[in-house]
Amino acid sequence: FDEKLIHSSEIKMETAALLDSILGKLEDEIRKSLEYNPPDGLAKKDITGEAHKLTVEFLGSLPRVREILQTDVEAAFNGDPAAASKEEVLVSYPFVEAIAVQRLAHELYLKNVALIPRIMSEWAHARTGMDLHPGAKIGSHFFVDHCTGTVVGETAIIGNHVKMYHGVTLGAKSTAGGQKLRGKRRHPTIEDHVTIYPGATILGGETIIGAGSTIGGNVFIMDSVQPNSLVIYDGLDMRVLSKLDKNIALDFQI
Amino acid sequence: FDEKLIHSSEIKMETAALLDSILGKLEDEIRKSLEYNPPDGLAKKDITGEAHKLTVEFLGSLPRVREILQTDVEAAFNGDPAAASKEEVLVSYPFVEAIAVQRLAHELYLKNVALIPRIMSEWAHARTGMDLHPGAKIGSHFFVDHCTGTVVGETAIIGNHVKMYHGVTLGAKSTAGGQKLRGKRRHPTIEDHVTIYPGATILGGETIIGAGSTIGGNVFIMDSVQPNSLVIYDGLDMRVLSKLDKNIALDFQI
Amino acid sequence: FDEKLIHSSEIKMETAALLDSILGKLEDEIRKSLEYNPPDGLAKKDITGEAHKLTVEFLGSLPRVREILQTDVEAAFNGDPAAASKEEVLVSYPFVEAIAVQRLAHELYLKNVALIPRIMSEWAHARTGMDLHPGAKIGSHFFVDHCTGTVVGETAIIGNHVKMYHGVTLGAKSTAGGQKLRGKRRHPTIEDHVTIYPGATILGGETIIGAGSTIGGNVFIMDSVQPNSLVIYDGLDMRVLSKLDKNIALDFQI
Repeated sequence: FDEKLIHSSEIKMETAALLDSILGKLEDEIRKSLEYNPPDGLAKKDITGEAHKLTVEFLGSLPRVREILQTDVEAAFNGDPAAASKEEVLVSYPFVEAIAVQRLAHELYLKNVALIPRIMSEWAHARTGMDLHPGAKIGSHFFVDHCTGTVVGETAIIGNHVKMYHGVTLGAKSTAGGQKLRGKRRHPTIEDHVTIYPGATILGGETIIGAGSTIGGNVFIMDSVQPNSLVIYDGLDMRVLSKLDKNIALDFQI
Repeated sequence: FDEKLIHSSEIKMETAALLDSILGKLEDEIRKSLEYNPPDGLAKKDITGEAHKLTVEFLGSLPRVREILQTDVEAAFNGDPAAASKEEVLVSYPFVEAIAVQRLAHELYLKNVALIPRIMSEWAHARTGMDLHPGAKIGSHFFVDHCTGTVVGETAIIGNHVKMYHGVTLGAKSTAGGQKLRGKRRHPTIEDHVTIYPGATILGGETIIGAGSTIGGNVFIMDSVQPNSLVIYDGLDMRVLSKLDKNIALDFQI
Repeated sequence: FDEKLIHSSEIKMETAALLDSILGKLEDEIRKSLEYNPPDGLAKKDITGEAHKLTVEFLGSLPRVREILQTDVEAAFNGDPAAASKEEVLVSYPFVEAIAVQRLAHELYLKNVALIPRIMSEWAHARTGMDLHPGAKIGSHFFVDHCTGTVVGETAIIGNHVKMYHGVTLGAKSTAGGQKLRGKRRHPTIEDHVTIYPGATILGGETIIGAGSTIGGNVFIMDSVQPNSLVIYDGLDMRVLSKLDKNIALDFQI
């Protein structure tokens, strides 16, 4: 990916130099964000110091974020028969990019830094088609295959070892209240070891998907389900007709 | 976003210079488009003049487009509890980019400029995952949250204060007729103050969703609904099984 | 698209020069891929020669790939009433980019080149929102309208004249087996002249959608259907309520 060839003995030094240059820029952006929307009780003269403090704290969180990201890559490789190697996961899976950005943006979100976390998550959203809000709390060994169209809302809580597919929505029941709902719990809780198939929509801040459950494709849920549940459509409402039957062919077209 | 620092007193002049350079390029592209596909009755020698006229008319539409875009930003902020500020909406919401491009492309579409409107809308589609055809007529105070996978067809008509989510399709019933259907009304009408939840699919040129209605998630509709309707799945066709019941666990796997 | 103006008499020479420079780079990447994951029985000293051989074979496949891509563009134009011209399809349809990359990546996949095919397909996935695995076997005259969210798995087989929409999943039934399932048939077979509407999910390696069938929007299928079937939701499970009825309005909100 990088144009410059570096010897393995130089990796540490190169990484340190790169990190240093990035953190300088980040501190600058955090300072601008604090100026735009100063936290309660922060005097204007203290903004520069606060920006430096937040940046150093963010730096301190990197080893922890890196560790949990390794569990995500592991989950992706173990959970996808199409993955030929962990290297393939790292260099080609959009999920890796999306979850890395979310976990970093989440650190800034927790410190009430304005604008930057959402700019980060929308950058990843544009590249991967998956919209993981920086506010969502996501456990270890997370994996979303294919990613496109999956949306995880601001107040969602996701346990460990959760596997999801594309087109999954962890959303709010009603947002008609608009800004009045801000800060309230609006999105579901997904407990440990849950699998959610493509196109499933799960809504509501009081909705809990119990540990070990499997949610089938295209299912629409607004209520909690017990641990170890399997939720699927019966197909009772689906009709299979023969196009060769002329009466039917005339009545139906999609 | 811009590398160059400018003083607020220079904004007007800088904007004028920027606009001037863009319009020159646009006029060039419109001229090429007219050469590629000349409108009926336009002589070859008149193409340059026509391109200039269309470009000036497009320039004239900008204040009107800007005004309606402000109602969209307002709708986004008011309709999304996760939005911390209008600035956050402006700098991070993919919807703002998608609707701005659609409204501008729509102006060129109305003047029968070939290729350019679709190139514009596909540029936005690639960035936001939302495919708003330049032909669609969209009212004020429009908002689509998350955007990914939402598709609005060429002949769709959307009223004022309509709120939609990701994965919503306003599509055609049958396109088996292919090019024979070109120019005919194929996509639905959504009246004022309608909300459409994620994954809903609404098809057909004669389908009208009455004002004030709410269409639930993952719903599939091919017929009109009265104003103030609430359309949802009952969940009657959904089965919740316990994985701990061994007989069931053996029969079902998703 | 290209900055350089070239005379039509120069196209052949320019194309040859461009191709030559690209193939040099590709050969380099293939060599690195072989070094990373050498096929059984390939000695280290033979890697450079093998990389050259694979690159030349890939070059040899281009006319065949080009020919089948022309059937795809034809299918797109004939199948979409919104398409104003084949040129519009070529310059603006994300499908053209996605299928071109898949068909090229498929050639490398068949030769067991590691990493590169998946990097190619994820590049297209990021741009178009459609995830076509390089392993999928796709017939002629293929068309996917809108593309966003459509996923076609590694072992899927798609016949000729198949038309699909956005949000369609050709996926695996259960991937709980993870890496143990690698190499096994996990994704469905779609026979000739099948149309699949938006949001449909079709799962399983033994699932066959018979020739000439139409699969309706948002349908979820895990079993085979006979040729010439029409599979749709009845809407029996859908409830349309009036918001003006106060009892209902109080009980339901989405």
